[in-house]
Amino acid sequence: MTGVRFDGPACPVPLTDTERVQLGHGSGGKMSARLIRDHFVPLLGNEYLAQQGDGAVLPAGERGELVVSTDSFVVSPLEFPGGNIGALAVHGTVNDVAMMGATPLFITAGFILEEGLPLDVLDRVVATMAAAARAAGVQMVAGDTKVVERGKADGMYINTTGLGMRDPGFRPGPERARPGDVILVSGPLARHGMAIMAVREGLSFETTITSDTACLVPLVAQLRQDIGDHVAALRDPTRGGMASALNEIAQASKVGMELDESAIPVPPDAYAACEMLGLDPLYVANEGVLTAIVRPEHADAALAAMRKHAVGAEARIVGRVVAEHPGYVVLKTLVGGTRIVDMLPGDQLPRIC
Amino acid sequence: MTGVRFDGPACPVPLTDTERVQLGHGSGGKMSARLIRDHFVPLLGNEYLAQQGDGAVLPAGERGELVVSTDSFVVSPLEFPGGNIGALAVHGTVNDVAMMGATPLFITAGFILEEGLPLDVLDRVVATMAAAARAAGVQMVAGDTKVVERGKADGMYINTTGLGMRDPGFRPGPERARPGDVILVSGPLARHGMAIMAVREGLSFETTITSDTACLVPLVAQLRQDIGDHVAALRDPTRGGMASALNEIAQASKVGMELDESAIPVPPDAYAACEMLGLDPLYVANEGVLTAIVRPEHADAALAAMRKHAVGAEARIVGRVVAEHPGYVVLKTLVGGTRIVDMLPGDQLPRIC
Repeated sequence: MTGVRFDGPACPVPLTDTERVQLGHGSGGKMSARLIRDHFVPLLGNEYLAQQGDGAVLPAGERGELVVSTDSFVVSPLEFPGGNIGALAVHGTVNDVAMMGATPLFITAGFILEEGLPLDVLDRVVATMAAAARAAGVQMVAGDTKVVERGKADGMYINTTGLGMRDPGFRPGPERARPGDVILVSGPLARHGMAIMAVREGLSFETTITSDTACLVPLVAQLRQDIGDHVAALRDPTRGGMASALNEIAQASKVGMELDESAIPVPPDAYAACEMLGLDPLYVANEGVLTAIVRPEHADAALAAMRKHAVGAEARIVGRVVAEHPGYVVLKTLVGGTRIVDMLPGDQLPRIC
Repeated sequence: MTGVRFDGPACPVPLTDTERVQLGHGSGGKMSARLIRDHFVPLLGNEYLAQQGDGAVLPAGERGELVVSTDSFVVSPLEFPGGNIGALAVHGTVNDVAMMGATPLFITAGFILEEGLPLDVLDRVVATMAAAARAAGVQMVAGDTKVVERGKADGMYINTTGLGMRDPGFRPGPERARPGDVILVSGPLARHGMAIMAVREGLSFETTITSDTACLVPLVAQLRQDIGDHVAALRDPTRGGMASALNEIAQASKVGMELDESAIPVPPDAYAACEMLGLDPLYVANEGVLTAIVRPEHADAALAAMRKHAVGAEARIVGRVVAEHPGYVVLKTLVGGTRIVDMLPGDQLPRIC
C-alpha cells in the first residue's frame, strides 16, 4: 500500500513463474520431477506412488500381481507420419504395463473432445486404437467421452489406463541394476520426437521421418521367456528420451552408467533433424523402443531375443552399468571424450505424446 | 463442379453439423448415446463395453470380480461452492465403481494442466483429492501429468480410473429391474448442476447453492449389508440427471417407470435457479445422490439403510417400476397429469463435471 489509493496496491504485485504451471513442468525432466515432488507426493504419496515405476503393482491374491498404469496423451498434431494420438494412447500405456514385467490385459479410454473436431478424424483415431489394442492383446473395457467448447482441447486429448498381470518370477525394476550389467536398446532412437517436430517446423528431408510408435509387448514376452529374471530393468524412453530413462534407473539403483555414443543407433534423417533444431537425440522421445538392463552373462541372449521381432531387429548393446559415479550417466563420445548426460531441467519438446 | 473453375468446386461445400463434434455430444443424452453407438462401439465394441454399466466387470479369479471405471472431468469453473474438480474426480469415479456393487480400492489420476495455472489452485485441488480418496477408502496408485500451452485446457482437466472388487453375491445391474420394484433417491436433486450454473450465470439467492459432491460408498455398503441382492439396480444420476439414469435402466430392463413429482426432493434454491434458467431438475447433474431400484418387500429397509448416513438422510421413495410402456419413464405431475420423461436429445448444461 502506498497511501495514494485505498482500494488495493498502487502497483500490482507480479506473480513470478514459480507460482504458475509452466510448459517445462510437462517435460519429463527435472521440472516435472519437482512438480511431482512438491505438489503431488506430499498430499497423495503412499507406498504405491513411492514405487515410482511406469505404473503401480497391486496385490491380487495368489495368482500374481496386478499392474496398473495411467497416461494422458496431448500430442500436437493429432495425426503424424507413422501414427496418430490413438496409436500413442494404446502403445504408451500397454508399453508402460509391459515395462513393469506384466502382460497387459485390459485398457480404459477417456476422451476429451473439442467442439468442432471433424468426426472423420475421431473415426481414424478410434480405428487405430482398436487395431492397436487387438495387436497388443488387450481389450478396451471402459470408456468415457467429454466435450469442451471450441479452443479448449486442441482437437482431442485421450487418457488411457492399462491393467496387466505380472508373474511373480519376473520383476524388472529401476532399483535392480548393478555394476557389470549391460545396457541394450531395442531399436533406433529419436524417430517419434523428430517425426512430430519435422511436421511442426515444416522440415523436409529426402524421406519422411516416421514415428516409431509400436507395441513392445512381444519383445518383453520374448525377454521373459528367454532370459527371465536376469532382466534387471526395463524402460521405454518416451518423454525425456533415453537420457531421462537411464538417469532414473541410475538414481534408483545408485549405480553409474557408461554409454558408447558410437553404438547408439540414430537414423540419418532423425539425426539431421536433431542437428538442424539443435536437439540431442538422447533426449528425444521414442514410442516404440525399450532399453533393457540385463545381467552380463545374458546380454547376448537378450540381444538375440529382441532381434527375433521386427520391432527389435536393430537391437544393440549401447553401454554398461558401473560402480563409479553413482547416479550419473556418462557418454563416451565419438571423438574420444566423455560428457555427463544429465536430466534436462525443463522442456526440450512440448506435446510430443 | 460447375465447369467455371477447374481447380475445385466453385463454391466450397459447407461441412454440416453431422460431420463435427458438437457440445451436445458430451451431454449424456441421446447425442452422446449416438456418438458412442456410431463412432466407438463399431470399432471398439466387445463383451465388456457391451455391459454399458458405469464401469466394466472383469474376471479376477475365485476371490470375486474386478470392477473398473474411467471418467474425465472438465468442469468449469474449477472451484465452485461445495467443491472443486478434484472432489468430482474422486467422487465421480469411486461412485461409479460403487454403483456396480463393488468396493472401490484403488484410483489413478491423469492431469492435463494448462500453462499458467496458478500452483495454489493445483494445490487446493490435489489436497481435496487426497482427502476425498482417504474418506472413500481408496489409494491413489498411479498418476500422470501433462502440460499444454496457454488456452488449451481451461485450467486443468483430470481423468480418474477406479478399481474395486465385487462380491459375487451383490450384483446390481441396469438390466435387473422388474415390475413392482420401488424407485428410491438418496437425497435432494439438482444441487450440483445448479451450483455450477449459479456461478456461471452470476445468479444469487438468499443462500448459496452448494454442490452435493459426495462419496456414496458408505451408502452402497449399507444397502449391501442390510438388503443385499434385493437391490436390483444402482445409478448415480450425474450428467443427464435422474431422467437419463432412469431411462437407461428402463431400456436395459425393458420395463416402464412411474415417478411421482410430489415425492421428488428438490431444494428451494436449486428449484428457483432451474425456474429462472428454464431447466428441468430431473435433467440436472447430481454428484452425491444415488437412485436405487429395489424389490418392493425391501423398500422400507433400503430407505432405512440410506437414512443411517448423513448423505442419505433425506432419502425418499419416488416411484415404481411397471410392466406398462416398457422403455419409458412417466412422471405423474403435481397437477395430476402425466408426461413422458424422455432422454434429452443434446445438451442441457455443458461442462458440469
